Amino acid sequence: MSDATAFPQHIIARKRDGRALTRGEIAAFVKGATEGTWADYQLAALLMAIFLRGMDTAETTALTEAMMRSGVVADLSHVSGVKVDKHSTGGVGDKVSLPLAAMVAACGVPVPMISGRGLGHTGGTLDKLESIPGFRVGLSLAEYAAQVERVGCALIGQTKDLAPADKKLYALRDVTATVECLPLICASIMSKKMAEGIDALVLDVKFGGGAFMKTLAEARALAEAMCAIGHAMKRPTRALLTRMDQPLGRAVGNAVEVAESIACLRGEAGPGADDLMEVTCALGAEMLLLAGVAKDEKTSREKLAATIADGSALEKFREIIVAQGGDPRVCDDPDGVLPRAKFTIEARAPRAGFVREVDAMAVALGALRLGAGRIRAEDTVDHAVGFSGLVKVGERVELGGVLGVVHANDEAKLDEARAWLEDAVAIDDPAPAAQPLIVERIG
Amino acid sequence: MSDATAFPQHIIARKRDGRALTRGEIAAFVKGATEGTWADYQLAALLMAIFLRGMDTAETTALTEAMMRSGVVADLSHVSGVKVDKHSTGGVGDKVSLPLAAMVAACGVPVPMISGRGLGHTGGTLDKLESIPGFRVGLSLAEYAAQVERVGCALIGQTKDLAPADKKLYALRDVTATVECLPLICASIMSKKMAEGIDALVLDVKFGGGAFMKTLAEARALAEAMCAIGHAMKRPTRALLTRMDQPLGRAVGNAVEVAESIACLRGEAGPGADDLMEVTCALGAEMLLLAGVAKDEKTSREKLAATIADGSALEKFREIIVAQGGDPRVCDDPDGVLPRAKFTIEARAPRAGFVREVDAMAVALGALRLGAGRIRAEDTVDHAVGFSGLVKVGERVELGGVLGVVHANDEAKLDEARAWLEDAVAIDDPAPAAQPLIVERIG
Repeated sequence: MSDATAFPQHIIARKRDGRALTRGEIAAFVKGATEGTWADYQLAALLMAIFLRGMDTAETTALTEAMMRSGVVADLSHVSGVKVDKHSTGGVGDKVSLPLAAMVAACGVPVPMISGRGLGHTGGTLDKLESIPGFRVGLSLAEYAAQVERVGCALIGQTKDLAPADKKLYALRDVTATVECLPLICASIMSKKMAEGIDALVLDVKFGGGAFMKTLAEARALAEAMCAIGHAMKRPTRALLTRMDQPLGRAVGNAVEVAESIACLRGEAGPGADDLMEVTCALGAEMLLLAGVAKDEKTSREKLAATIADGSALEKFREIIVAQGGDPRVCDDPDGVLPRAKFTIEARAPRAGFVREVDAMAVALGALRLGAGRIRAEDTVDHAVGFSGLVKVGERVELGGVLGVVHANDEAKLDEARAWLEDAVAIDDPAPAAQPLIVERIG
Repeated sequence: MSDATAFPQHIIARKRDGRALTRGEIAAFVKGATEGTWADYQLAALLMAIFLRGMDTAETTALTEAMMRSGVVADLSHVSGVKVDKHSTGGVGDKVSLPLAAMVAACGVPVPMISGRGLGHTGGTLDKLESIPGFRVGLSLAEYAAQVERVGCALIGQTKDLAPADKKLYALRDVTATVECLPLICASIMSKKMAEGIDALVLDVKFGGGAFMKTLAEARALAEAMCAIGHAMKRPTRALLTRMDQPLGRAVGNAVEVAESIACLRGEAGPGADDLMEVTCALGAEMLLLAGVAKDEKTSREKLAATIADGSALEKFREIIVAQGGDPRVCDDPDGVLPRAKFTIEARAPRAGFVREVDAMAVALGALRLGAGRIRAEDTVDHAVGFSGLVKVGERVELGGVLGVVHANDEAKLDEARAWLEDAVAIDDPAPAAQPLIVERIG
C-alpha cells in the first residue's frame, strides 16, 4: 500500500477527528486485524476512537461485511427455502434456541444456527446441547451445510474460519475497555450471523437486570442498529425486545434446561413455562413470516402450535440429535439419559405471599458457583448442576413452600446455593402487577 | 495489585467515560508503560481516550511528575544559584540555545540544558553542536552535573535513563495518531525538562507556518498549559509566544547555524540577524528575572548586552566547548574549523521589490533534502549543508540580487535547492507591514 491514506495512523486519525471512515478504510482495518499487518496498539487506538466517536449505519455495515468476509462465509445456496436464524443477546435460563429451532424447522423453514461458546453464568446453547450424551457441536462447515439441507437444521459451534477478525477484535476489546460500544457490538454479532449463510434473521434483544442491556432504551438502540445493518446487507432482520428480570422458564443450568426444552416440545410445559413458550412462539412467528411460509402472525402461530400438538417438533429435535451423534432416547426419557447431579435440595419460602422478584442475575451467579458456567474460556462446564422448578413472579407461595431445587455435585455448595436462591426470591403482598414479556417489535 | 481498580481496563474505562484520573491511576499507567506491565494496546487505548477526553491541570501535572520519575532525575542541588533552562517548541533556523546558554551562563546563572535529538527538517541543537569538531553531547548525568557546577552550563543529549516512560509513550503516540494532544505534549516536554534538575524554565512557544503550532491560539493554549504544570510543580515557568513564519536569523542547517551563533556572540550580527538576537535577548531576560539576578527587564537586558560587549559570552561558549571536548578555535575562525560543503551556489531574485515572505517550511524542506536533517531516527545528518545569507522579510532586493546561498555536498542537488529557495521567497511591492516577533508573554 503505497497510498499514504492507507497508513493505519491516517485511518485512526480520521476516526479520532470524528470523520466517517470509507469502506476501503474499514476493509484495511479489518484486513490489518486478520492478517496482523496492523499492530495491536493501532487496532486498540482505533477501537477506542470508534468507541468515543461512533460509527454511522454505513460504516457499521461496512465493518460487519468486512468482518464477515475476514473468514469463510457458509454457502447454503443449494438449500431451498429462506434460511432464517435467531440470535439472542443472552439471558438467564434462555434455552429458547432448542425448542425454537425444532419447531421452525418442523414448519419447513431451514434453520442454520451457529453459536459461540462465550462466557456466561450458565453455559451457552452449545453447552446445553452437549449435556445430551454424544451430541457433537463441532461439525465442519461442509457437514453443517449438508445437515441443514438434509434435516432442515443444524446447531453447531463457531469454527476457527468463521469471522476471525471478530475473534481478534473481541479479545482486544475485552482488555482495552472497548466492549460496550454499539457499532462494535453490532458488527461482532452480525458478522458472525451473516457468515452462517442465512437469508433473514430474528433477534431477541433482552433488557433488564438479567440482561447485557439494562434498559429498554439501550435494547432498542441495539435492535435498531442491528436491524439497519441487516437491511443494508439485504438480509431482512427483525427484533423483539423482551424483558429479562427473572429467569426464562423454570430451569437454569444445562441438562435441566434441555429437560425443560424437551418438556416444551412434548407439550408438557406446565403453566410456569408459559414465559418460555411465549418468547419461543413470538420469535418463531417472526421467523416463519420472514421465511414467507405464513401469511400473517396468526397463521404463523397456529403452524408453530401444530408442531407441538402433532409431535413434529419433537420428531425434528430427535432428527437433529441423531444427525449430530446424540442419544435420541433423551426425547423420551430425559431424566434417564441426561446427566444428573449427585445432590439436590429444595429452597423454601421463609414466609407466605406472592413472588415479587426472582433476581435473574443472582440465580445466574448461583448457577455459576455451582459450576454451570465459565469464568474463563478454558473452564469446563458441569452439565448436571443448576436450578430447576423455580417459582415465577406473581405466583403464590406458602410458608415453607418450594422456591426451586438446587442440583449440585459438590455437597459443600449445596446449602450455599440454597441460601443464595432463597435470597434471590423476594416474597411480598399483594401480588405484583403483571408486566408484558415482549415489549416491542422492531424492523 | 489485588485492587480491581488498578486493572488497566478499569483505568482506561474511567478516562473513556470522561472522568479525571487520580494520581494513583496515572502513576499505575506510567509504571505500566515503563515496566511493560501494561500491554502496548492498553497504553494505546488510554492514549486515545486521553486524546479525545482531555486531562485537567491536576492530571497533566500528575502525568508529568510520574513520567519525570519514571527514570533518573538529575540532582543539581550542589550547584548554587537558581538553575534555569529554556525550551523551544521548535522552528526553522532556531539556533537560539547556543548564544542564549552562553550569555545567560556568563551572567552567572547556571544553565543545565538537556536536548532531545528528535526528528526535524534540520538537526536539533545537538546536531548543530556536533558540527564543532570533537564536541561531545553524550555526557553522563554525573559529568553533566559536574560541568554545570564548574562551567555554569552543559549542553547535552538525553540519556536512556531520563524519563523512559516518555520514550515509550512517544513511540506509541507516533504510530497511533495520538501525537497532537495538548496534555500529552505538555507532559512529554515538561517531564524531560523537570528531570534536568532545574529550578525554573522559560519556554519559547512558536506559532506560524514554520512551527508545530500553526496559530497563536494553539500556541497560547500550549504555553498556558505548560506554565500551569511548572507552577504546580513549584518550578516557575514563563513562556513567550514568538512568530515563526520565516527562518530565524539568516542561516538554516547545522554548521552554518553555529557560525551564525558565534557571529552573534562576537557582536558581529549584522542588521539581518536582529530577529535572532531579539528572541535570544527576550528569552534571556526572562531567565535572568526568574533566576533573581536582575531586578527588572531593563537591567536584565543590559546585563545580557554586556556579555556580548565585553566578550564574556563568547568566552563562556569557548569554555563549554572545551569542557565538552570540542575545538575552541571555532570561536575565532568558524569558517576554518567548521565543516564546509563542497559546492555552493547563490539563489537570485527574479525581480526587484520587497521581500514579502520567506516560507520557513519550504526552506526547511529544502535543507532536509540537502541532508541537514532526519526523516527517520537512524538517518545521519550532514553538518555542512544548508542555507546561509538568507534575505529577511521587508528587505529590498534588486533583480538578480542574492536571496541566499545554498551549501551542498551533492552537486546534483545544488540547482534543485537553489530553485527551491527561489520559490520560497516571494517578492512584491510595496514593502510589507512589519509584524511583531514576540507577541505575548505568559506566566
